[in-house]
Parts: sequence; C-alpha cells; structure tokens
Amino acid sequence: MIDQNTICAITTAPGTGAIAVIRLSGEQSIEITDSVFRSAKKGKTLIDQAGNTLHFGQIYDDEILVDEVVVSIFRAPHSFTGEDVVEISCHGSVYLQQTLLQLFVKRGARLARPGEFTQRAFLNGKMDLSQAEAVADVISASSKAAHQIALNQMKGGISQQIKSLRSELLTFISLVELELDFSEEDVEFANRQQLLELVIQIKRTIDKLASSFQYGNAIKNGIPIAIIGDTNVGKSTLLNALVNEERAIVSHIAGTTRDVIEDVVIIDGIEFRFIDTAGIRHTTDTIESIGIERTYNKIEQAEFILTLVDASRPFNEIVKFLTQMSEKLHGKHSALVINKIDIANDEDINELASMGEAMGMPTILISAKKQIQIDLLINYLTHSIRQKRQNETDVVITNVRHYEAFSLAGASVARVIEGLNTGISGDFLAQDIRECLHYLGEITGEISTDEVLGNIFKNFCIGK
Amino acid sequence: MIDQNTICAITTAPGTGAIAVIRLSGEQSIEITDSVFRSAKKGKTLIDQAGNTLHFGQIYDDEILVDEVVVSIFRAPHSFTGEDVVEISCHGSVYLQQTLLQLFVKRGARLARPGEFTQRAFLNGKMDLSQAEAVADVISASSKAAHQIALNQMKGGISQQIKSLRSELLTFISLVELELDFSEEDVEFANRQQLLELVIQIKRTIDKLASSFQYGNAIKNGIPIAIIGDTNVGKSTLLNALVNEERAIVSHIAGTTRDVIEDVVIIDGIEFRFIDTAGIRHTTDTIESIGIERTYNKIEQAEFILTLVDASRPFNEIVKFLTQMSEKLHGKHSALVINKIDIANDEDINELASMGEAMGMPTILISAKKQIQIDLLINYLTHSIRQKRQNETDVVITNVRHYEAFSLAGASVARVIEGLNTGISGDFLAQDIRECLHYLGEITGEISTDEVLGNIFKNFCIGK
Repeated sequence: MIDQNTICAITTAPGTGAIAVIRLSGEQSIEITDSVFRSAKKGKTLIDQAGNTLHFGQIYDDEILVDEVVVSIFRAPHSFTGEDVVEISCHGSVYLQQTLLQLFVKRGARLARPGEFTQRAFLNGKMDLSQAEAVADVISASSKAAHQIALNQMKGGISQQIKSLRSELLTFISLVELELDFSEEDVEFANRQQLLELVIQIKRTIDKLASSFQYGNAIKNGIPIAIIGDTNVGKSTLLNALVNEERAIVSHIAGTTRDVIEDVVIIDGIEFRFIDTAGIRHTTDTIESIGIERTYNKIEQAEFILTLVDASRPFNEIVKFLTQMSEKLHGKHSALVINKIDIANDEDINELASMGEAMGMPTILISAKKQIQIDLLINYLTHSIRQKRQNETDVVITNVRHYEAFSLAGASVARVIEGLNTGISGDFLAQDIRECLHYLGEITGEISTDEVLGNIFKNFCIGK
Repeated sequence: MIDQNTICAITTAPGTGAIAVIRLSGEQSIEITDSVFRSAKKGKTLIDQAGNTLHFGQIYDDEILVDEVVVSIFRAPHSFTGEDVVEISCHGSVYLQQTLLQLFVKRGARLARPGEFTQRAFLNGKMDLSQAEAVADVISASSKAAHQIALNQMKGGISQQIKSLRSELLTFISLVELELDFSEEDVEFANRQQLLELVIQIKRTIDKLASSFQYGNAIKNGIPIAIIGDTNVGKSTLLNALVNEERAIVSHIAGTTRDVIEDVVIIDGIEFRFIDTAGIRHTTDTIESIGIERTYNKIEQAEFILTLVDASRPFNEIVKFLTQMSEKLHGKHSALVINKIDIANDEDINELASMGEAMGMPTILISAKKQIQIDLLINYLTHSIRQKRQNETDVVITNVRHYEAFSLAGASVARVIEGLNTGISGDFLAQDIRECLHYLGEITGEISTDEVLGNIFKNFCIGK
C-alpha cells in the first residue's frame, strides 16, 4: 500500500520564522539530502551517519550555496514514519523554504500530500488509525482539555480499550465457532449465562465510549453557550467580565452568516464559545422578529444557556420575560443569572432567586459591571462541563467516525444479547459478533479501505 | 556583557504547523529540559548525552504529560550561540507552543528578546556584527539575489574585506607611530610615496564598497521601476504581460498613501517593484493635477523608468508627450518602450525608435497584449541591474549602517591622502588613520556600544 517514493514537505508553520524545518521520508531521504549537503569536515557523508544524530553543514544547488543548515537523521524504524527520515533545519525565509523544497524535488523526492507522513506511520505499523487521527487533533487543539484528550488518544488510549474489547469478543466467537464445528454432536462449549454476562459487560463499555462523544466533541470544538436575555440586561458587560479575568484567550469567530458572531473564551483549560444572541422581546417588527427567531434556534444548538436578567428592572417585567422563556428552556441546561445585584433591592433579588429555583434552574447572583461573583459563574460553567465526564481517567472519544463505529458496534452487541436471551443458533450469534469486531476494527484501522484512509488524511495539514 | 540566564523562544514561524521548534540557550538549557523530559529508556538523562544528538521522549509538567517530542542537543561551543543549546521539536499547535514555553519559564529559563540568540552568537565570538546583521537579512530575503547577498555577508564576505583593510592600515599606523616615538631624531620609517600608494588603494576599496550600497540596497528592498505614459497606452497590460510569463511571484503592496500601489514581481531572482503611476496629460482638473504631480515624484524615486508609448496613436501626439517628458527624464535611467507594434504602422514605429535614440534612451518594441518581445524588455531590466554590479563575486553592502561607516571611513582616508600630499605631521596622519580604523571596527562590531547593539537586534524577530 505504501509507494516507495521519498516524500518531502515543509513541516513548520507557513510564513517567515527564525528557522523552518523541511522533512523527507522514504528509502532515499538520506541519499537525496546527502547529494546536496556538504559538511565542514572533509569527506564526511550523511549516508555513513548513525540515526538520531545532528549534522551542521551547507546545502548546495550544484555550485551555488543555498543555505547553512542543521540536518537531523532518523534511521528506520526509529522515526515518526518508520522509514528513514531527514529533517533539515534551515533559515526561515519563505523564499528559502520554497527553494530547498524545489531542490529536493529536483533531486528525486516528491511533495508529500496532506497527512502523508502520518499515513505512512500508520501503514508501517507505528500507530493504529485512531492514533493517527489523534495526531491531527493534537496539532489543532486550542485548549488544555482538548489537548489532553487528543494526546491520550494519540498515545493509544482508545486503541487499548478496543484491543481489550476485541480480545474478549474473539474468545467468545472462538467458542461459538467451535460449537458450530461440532454442531452434529449438539455440545455447548460456551456457557450461555457466562457469555451473556460477558457481552453485557462489553456492551456497557461500548455504550460508555459512544456516549463520551458528546463530552469529547464539546471539548474538541468548544462548548456552545448562549447568553439570552431581554435587551440591555448586560450581555456584553458579562462577556467582558468573563474575559477580563485574564484567565482567557479571546477571539471573534465569524460564523456562516454575517450576524452570527462567537466569542471564544478559554476558561480553566476549557474552550467556551459564547454565542451572541439578539435581545428577546415582544415585537411586531419583522426584521427584529427574525433576529429573535434566530436566537431561539441558537438556544437549540447551545450546550448551556445563561438566562440573564437585570434585577434592577421592574419585577413584573422580569417575571414576564422568564415566563415567556420557560417553555423554550425546558429540558435544556440553563442557569438563571441575576445581574446588577449591586443596584437592585434585596427583596427583588430574593424573589427572583426563588423563581429560578421554582423553574428548576441553578441561580447565580452577579454584578457584571462590578465584577461581583463572576468566579461563581465560572465555577458553575466549568463544573457543569466536568460533570458530563464520569471520570477524569476515562477514555473519551472526540471523532464522529469513532462515534458511528461504536454506535454500530453497540447495536451489533445488542443483537448478540437479544440472541442469547432468545436462544438463537450459533450461526447468527457468530455473525453479529463478527459485525461488532468489524466496526471496532474500523476504528483502529485493522479494517480500512483506501477511501476511508483518503478521507481521513486529506484533512491533515501538509507536512504531517 | 552576556547575562548568564538561559533564554528560550519559539523559533519557527508563528501559527499552527505540523511541528514547531522551541530553542533554549545558556548554561542551564540542558538541565532545564532534562527536568521536564522523560525518555522511554529507563534512567536515561539528557545531561549525560553528547552534543549533536537527538532524543525522543515525553515532556511532563509534574505528573501531567504535555507532549511527545524530539530533543536536539548542541554542546558549547558547537552551537549557533556558542552556548549549550537545546531545540525541542514538538507538535505544532499554538496552545502547545505556549504551554511548553511557559513550562520552561517556570523551570528557570527566561523569554528571549528579539535577536537575542544571534546577539549571544556575536558576543561569544561565533560571528562578527556584520555577519549577525546578515542573519536577519537571510531570514527576510524574498528573492534569490537578495538571499545570495545576505548569505555571502553572513558567511563573512564583508568581514574578510574589512579584516584585510584594517591589517593594511595597522601596518601603516605602526610605522607612523614609530616615527613619532623617534620624532626628535627626525627619521622617516615610512616611505611617504609607498604609503600614499597604499592609502589610495585602500580608499579605492572603501569607495567601491560604499558605492555597492546602491545596488545592494536595491536588491535587498526591490528595484523601484516606474512605468509612465499617457493615459490608456497599456500600462496595466504591460504589467500583466510581465507577470503572466510565469517567471514571477506577484503581490500588491499598499504604500503609505492609499493611491500608491506597488506590484512586486520577481524576475530571474531579482525583485522589481513596479510603481503604479497616474496617466500623464495636460489637465486643468485639480485632482488630476495632484495625481500627475505625484507621478513626477515617483519618477524621482524610481531606479528605472519605462516610458511607454502607444505607437498606434497619432504620431504628433506621441512626440508632444515625449517632448513634455524629456526634461523630467533627464539624467534618469529611462527606456522608451514602444507598445502596440502589432497594430501600428512600421513607418511610425521606426520614427519613434529614432526619436528615442536621439533622446539617448534605449528603445524596446513590444506588444503587451500579444506578448511580443516581452522577453527583450525583461532582458533589458535584468541586464541593467546586473550592470550596476561590477563583478558577480564582489562584496556588496546592503545595510545603511555599513554604508555610513564606509562613507565616514572613506572621508578619513581622504584626509590621510590629503595630509600625505601636503606633508602634514605624523600626529595628524595617525589621528585620521585611527578614525578610519574606528569606523571599520564599527561595522564588524569590534567597536560597539550597548546602544548600537540594542538598535541592531531589536529589529530581529524573536527566536533568532
């Protein structure tokens, strides 16, 4: 499956840096580099050098000096790809990066496709498919939580779980198939009750992994949070307060439509995407109605909703708003955030807090402007997210491909359980188990097609 | 002058890449890295490793795995800075780069200032100041010609020239000072005629270096070329023709004012900046007059001027335009480019060509639209630039600081020559020679102040 070409690419971020690194991988990578490399030490060639060594020297294009570089040599199989790998650390001008890349192509390397280094690592057995996919996640992780999950997956967290599931299922199927071989003799090698217990255990693990996707996906892509409220209750001020606490990196992400703006805030290592929403109020204005309709849609998409009210406003007005929203908020994770507690009267605040409780919403009292109890709100958010994960050490999946495979594997196992309960024949049991093994194998890439691989690696960056 | 801190910085381009490289330099760089590094090989520590070796392992922040990395170790003095240097090749997410940098700071390194690695290389005697300055030029070079000049300087091209000039001057001054020691005896150790010949030779070299700045600066910053002409003679078409030949990279650079747009085109490794000019014609419109006035200013700034005429227009009209321009073009490098030769009649073309010759302008016949003889025009441009450089192997200076120092050194030497001719006393001769040595020493940094160094290195990027 691996072509024998030596591939090359710029592997550092695009643009000008102090240095840039060009990577070659393949049988000829050392030879190709050597053909343009001159060491200060007379007679020294890269071909004779051991793996894991560094060499200072000059790159020449025929008789023209191109740059002074440091060459790293990795010998197969002790490299990222499992092949001979050379990394050339050169001066970081874009001109030079392109010139060197062209030089290596001229000398017989070919430009690497996106993810091709990682794909070779997979094909050479340096990592399984779920680990290869995690490499891209590690590179694109923008928060601590996302990074840790990706790193755990890259190190084989999911692979281990699947390996153990597969080995249990293989023991199971071998017993069932043994029965089929001796089917005329009508023996049962596999104790059906023990089998059932085993399969129920397997199903539980698979379901847990599948359900970790909701948490994993939220961590990976950021947790969408809608702040809703009447107009001018202090949404922007709240957002600023969250940001100003200096525990945050902030950027504005323009969405698919011009009016959907997200503020990305990383709090305690978790990425939150605060979705800007239009103020909600009764209106006959068509344009404004559309805005409010959009807000309702965003409530649907959000993982959490902060319902913000201004406690200094007339009490009746707030109650009216909350009543209006209660239906929309039903079944959602929503907290009532009572703002402007520094200027509102205590009686109103208490009444509102009681109302929140009655609506089944956690209630947090703050002043966004005076930065009072913003910490409480932040604790609520991070705690609510962490609660979604049963256990810090649990394996979490973040990849929709894995989620689908686990869901399908779960369905197969459910049929096995049903079969065992209804006493169906070993043939059918074996078929469902094989199906489950197939789906698990898809995750680690033991079963894969060129199309699947193509889809996975095309989303990588070049140079990885 | 060097502080003993270990410094660290991200040394690859900013942003997300497949990998990023973090560099540490200083006595504690290996120790600091080792304090967070765990090898797969039990008991292996980085402190025990030889220079120029690579080590795969994991970075831990206490008990939390941060990343899997490859560590390069360079031992003093065999490193870029001349100190112990560690380069950590990590996964290229921005989150991770920042996290690792913070980790190294927590463990005792401090963030490097811009250019601080190169500054240390200079202070540790790994390179002189002109070479250190060239490092920044190598990184920012965007064309082959600019890259080659910077690389030559980095390798010590200028340093060598200065070294030889200084050694000649030192021989000279030692003889003169010997005379001063024996001044009462009124002997002449130094043959005045030989001295004069030597100093004239030195002056010639210094002047040549100083005058190479014009070429060097143009190569480094791009050669400004103005295409001027009546309205609608085909300026844009010509620019497109130059670009379309696929020997070019093109970008648009917005100038200081909104209406000054430059097209940067790299042709045969040389960067040309085509300055967009307003069409020139007689007008009473105020706004348009301002535009034309600007065009005249641009003619002043341009290194070359292409005066473009449309040969298919009435002959008198063209003659009027050329006559109008002739004064402005006087003393400038200007070529007459006769466009639309595919549709003009031959008689007019020949007449125009004769007129160009009479005005002392090289004349090139083209059709921008049909791409006829664009090659000729390109040859004219590249050849004219290369002519400015006496010899391909000559040292070229590109740095205004060097230009000033060479100019001042030249003035000192001129006074020495004058002194020798008028027979002034050895005291004054010695003083002028010392001054010349001082200016030459400034270029290589043998004489430097913190202020000068500060100014030089603050313009570097961080990580270099």
